[in-house]
Amino acid sequence: MHGLMMDYQLTMDRILEHANRMFPHKQITTLQPDGSRHRYNYAEAYTRIKRLAKALVNLGIQPGDRVGTFAWNNYQHFELYFAIPGAGAVCHTLNIRLFPEQLAYIVDHAEDQIVFIEASLLPLYERIAHQISCVKHYVLINAPRTIETRLRNVLHYEDLLADADEDFAWRSTDERMAMGMCYTSGTTGNPKGALYSHRSMYLHTIGENQAAALGIVESDVVLPVVPQFHAMAWGLPYACAMSGADLVMPGMHLQPAPLARLIAEERVTVAGGVPTIWMGLYQELKQNPRDLSSLRALVVGGSAMPRSLIEAYERELGVNVLHAWGMTELSPLGTVSILQKHHQNLSDKEKWDVKARQGYAIAGVEMRIVDDSGRELPWDNKSVGELQVRGPWIIRQYFKREHSEDQFTADGWFRTGDVCTIDPYGYMTITDRTKDLVKSGGEWISSVELENAIMGHPDVLEAAVIAIPDDRWLERPLAVVVARPGATLAQEQLRTYLQDKIAKFWMPDHFVFVPEIPKTSVGKFSKTTLRQMYGEGRLSA
Amino acid sequence: MHGLMMDYQLTMDRILEHANRMFPHKQITTLQPDGSRHRYNYAEAYTRIKRLAKALVNLGIQPGDRVGTFAWNNYQHFELYFAIPGAGAVCHTLNIRLFPEQLAYIVDHAEDQIVFIEASLLPLYERIAHQISCVKHYVLINAPRTIETRLRNVLHYEDLLADADEDFAWRSTDERMAMGMCYTSGTTGNPKGALYSHRSMYLHTIGENQAAALGIVESDVVLPVVPQFHAMAWGLPYACAMSGADLVMPGMHLQPAPLARLIAEERVTVAGGVPTIWMGLYQELKQNPRDLSSLRALVVGGSAMPRSLIEAYERELGVNVLHAWGMTELSPLGTVSILQKHHQNLSDKEKWDVKARQGYAIAGVEMRIVDDSGRELPWDNKSVGELQVRGPWIIRQYFKREHSEDQFTADGWFRTGDVCTIDPYGYMTITDRTKDLVKSGGEWISSVELENAIMGHPDVLEAAVIAIPDDRWLERPLAVVVARPGATLAQEQLRTYLQDKIAKFWMPDHFVFVPEIPKTSVGKFSKTTLRQMYGEGRLSA
Repeated sequence: MHGLMMDYQLTMDRILEHANRMFPHKQITTLQPDGSRHRYNYAEAYTRIKRLAKALVNLGIQPGDRVGTFAWNNYQHFELYFAIPGAGAVCHTLNIRLFPEQLAYIVDHAEDQIVFIEASLLPLYERIAHQISCVKHYVLINAPRTIETRLRNVLHYEDLLADADEDFAWRSTDERMAMGMCYTSGTTGNPKGALYSHRSMYLHTIGENQAAALGIVESDVVLPVVPQFHAMAWGLPYACAMSGADLVMPGMHLQPAPLARLIAEERVTVAGGVPTIWMGLYQELKQNPRDLSSLRALVVGGSAMPRSLIEAYERELGVNVLHAWGMTELSPLGTVSILQKHHQNLSDKEKWDVKARQGYAIAGVEMRIVDDSGRELPWDNKSVGELQVRGPWIIRQYFKREHSEDQFTADGWFRTGDVCTIDPYGYMTITDRTKDLVKSGGEWISSVELENAIMGHPDVLEAAVIAIPDDRWLERPLAVVVARPGATLAQEQLRTYLQDKIAKFWMPDHFVFVPEIPKTSVGKFSKTTLRQMYGEGRLSA
Repeated sequence: MHGLMMDYQLTMDRILEHANRMFPHKQITTLQPDGSRHRYNYAEAYTRIKRLAKALVNLGIQPGDRVGTFAWNNYQHFELYFAIPGAGAVCHTLNIRLFPEQLAYIVDHAEDQIVFIEASLLPLYERIAHQISCVKHYVLINAPRTIETRLRNVLHYEDLLADADEDFAWRSTDERMAMGMCYTSGTTGNPKGALYSHRSMYLHTIGENQAAALGIVESDVVLPVVPQFHAMAWGLPYACAMSGADLVMPGMHLQPAPLARLIAEERVTVAGGVPTIWMGLYQELKQNPRDLSSLRALVVGGSAMPRSLIEAYERELGVNVLHAWGMTELSPLGTVSILQKHHQNLSDKEKWDVKARQGYAIAGVEMRIVDDSGRELPWDNKSVGELQVRGPWIIRQYFKREHSEDQFTADGWFRTGDVCTIDPYGYMTITDRTKDLVKSGGEWISSVELENAIMGHPDVLEAAVIAIPDDRWLERPLAVVVARPGATLAQEQLRTYLQDKIAKFWMPDHFVFVPEIPKTSVGKFSKTTLRQMYGEGRLSA
């Protein structure tokens, strides 16, 4: 027997309708390319989104068609986030930091029919345009009339809007319809696409807004520094629309100084970004202090925030750091490290230890750790295993990859590729990626933990650890280190510092000092590049 | 094209599994019939729920069967909340305050196969047992071995558990399956049953836990004074399991003194109940002050909390009142009155005005107001219309009432029967029930607003307004008033007090002073009874 409840489809247009109805006056502020601030409200956004959706249909977009976006975080990208799914199509966010071959691959693989391109990014895109045949129209955002381009079938964003009216009925009629798409920038092989449904993204949004998750509310002012082309900006634009929070979009201005200014001047309460962004902001704030008292949570994800930086933010700047973990395949939010009741009486130092963990699974996400044979391991804070997850906003398959079973278990869990421990209270700590572990003489060494230990040294800015071949131990850890500006570092200093902090066999045989660690397109340490540089034991790259 | 996300069913067992996995140590405390406190944790509850679900199957329960509960709020009732749906059956909470005929009607109408009865309520149930033929087994809760009963096929709760083991796979495999049932105690005609699905209740739970709704978190200690047989205790038991909050169950001890003691001693952070409960608690606290500093929200719903009482709680006791509105048909949460950013600079008095409203629709609930002809009315704080709602946790039909179209609009909205205004920020205020409006000389008088005005008088404890026939005006308001203990009141005092607070034609021609206002089974003023007593203008009942 079925319940007798409304058959109410969980589609993204419901979220936008809610925003327009309940929060028409709330603001979306964008830092424009010229440094000025564009401001409008949800009611104005709503009307433009309706026009944009209608314009897409006028251009011939059919249900399920993919529409690409190649843009910074701004109000136009916010409009595309709702207009494309509202037109029944799939919003495919293109990562502007991909290598050209990868970018061409994903546009082609997704068969994007239209691509929206920010004028400042046009040169980047033009490099690959000759490889693309699927795209029927390009639409330029923030482009002057005089712009010259080699692309064909080019329209201007505002012309498109001007030619359509807002008399449009949403075409998102079934919650199972695809609404968004994001490719993971795998370190090996071609990128793989996650294909979100309306249902999964609606549930992710309401799940993220639980008080025990990010808990965005109307009085929040949210700054997504995390790009909209990176795992749907962690769902923050949708979470804001659902809760009526003000939204502040940084555009292309991701440097520490303009971010600090934005937070202080717009009275931002929640800002989300990867650790490297917050590392830069910290340096900036030490030199040019600003009033950040409005911030209730500096959300950090994408990779692990070093404990030392969490401590520095809280102790020196009074900023609460909210460590989160997710993946493109998880829409992306999986865990958050918010203190619970049993942490109340801990010392500050112990609290920072907890906050340096990836945290507990938010309601809606199930997690487990398993060993090599697939056996489930206990949550004892010691057992190390691969993290597997399950839930309504987690993918079951990659786009056009029927045979990607190695990422999914037979009983329906997603294999994250992260290696971790879980404590008895459900706080998960990632110790490594399965492929980044160093296996030395039959013993595992966690590259992440070793990196964190090294980054605890006051003169170290960044550190990455990879395995290099060793005749005796098969693999040994190599540390690649960036000193803080002005500091000089020698191997011996680091050895002495690490002596009582790590197991003896974890001590790297070699430290290499470099001016910068190569990063992936989403700002993580690119261990693939490091392996290419040092993997054979060539210590001078 | 569909998304490629996991086909993850939103079933209630997921919530319990989450509680057991993430919060095994968190506590459920019950005030027992003898006044002692029973304490155990979610892990212990989990094991017993598995045994109970298996026991139900052992008793022959089939998917979709209805299983009744006739009990106070306690840990056994919490177990039934999960075990019955987990066994694939429907948890039908029987309202212990229904009139015997109504109770017999709903057990029979629902075709309950098993009924769980709390020993203290056995005499109440026995009165109707002879009218019931569908029930195959009765299970007694908290009953001594020596108990005597006229019921047949009687088991003891703990025996049932002892005979089953916990090796049980949940039978809730499809989110559309029915999981719960609650009849509304309509003031006219037979009660009507709402039939909740797993999906609707899961979504209600995660929706209720949004930071902008009740936002229950792990550090909360929640006291549902609202009975579990009243609209699923507003979903609080499920919200606690999902978030890991401690739960405090008052059992049969709903008197002001034990409630005050429970809140103070268990350090309750969120308590939920109807206004009459909080009215009583306020009187108690004025006489016997207690430390209520742990309370972050006194949630009130079921009927409107008088503004004067909201003010008294906040000003005199420092307790934050969270006004909510819902209905059995809404699972039940619809709106909450939490202040928003634009209220920040209001005076205390103005803030209490806002808190006396029913508040904004939480995400997941859509609302609109319409006039008699079905035309939608603006949200201008002036237009008065019938409130209609839509959403994933709202019923589309009553159980075995295919022809209840008068409660649903052709375009799929539920007609609440409440009459209200909505302000431009989406704050809804109920001015009356459609059937309680007083139509005097062609003009509407809101009985609720008039009651609130009268209850603002310091010597008035309760006031209810009904329409009585009038030769000249067709209808005129009659006020039925209860004076505070020790106070004496005369008509003239009230007239003088109301003079500048209400429109002249709203002034009741007659005030009747009574020792108590008759209540419905859920504690609301029973206007049906008042109409029977005074409806023909007989002013001395």
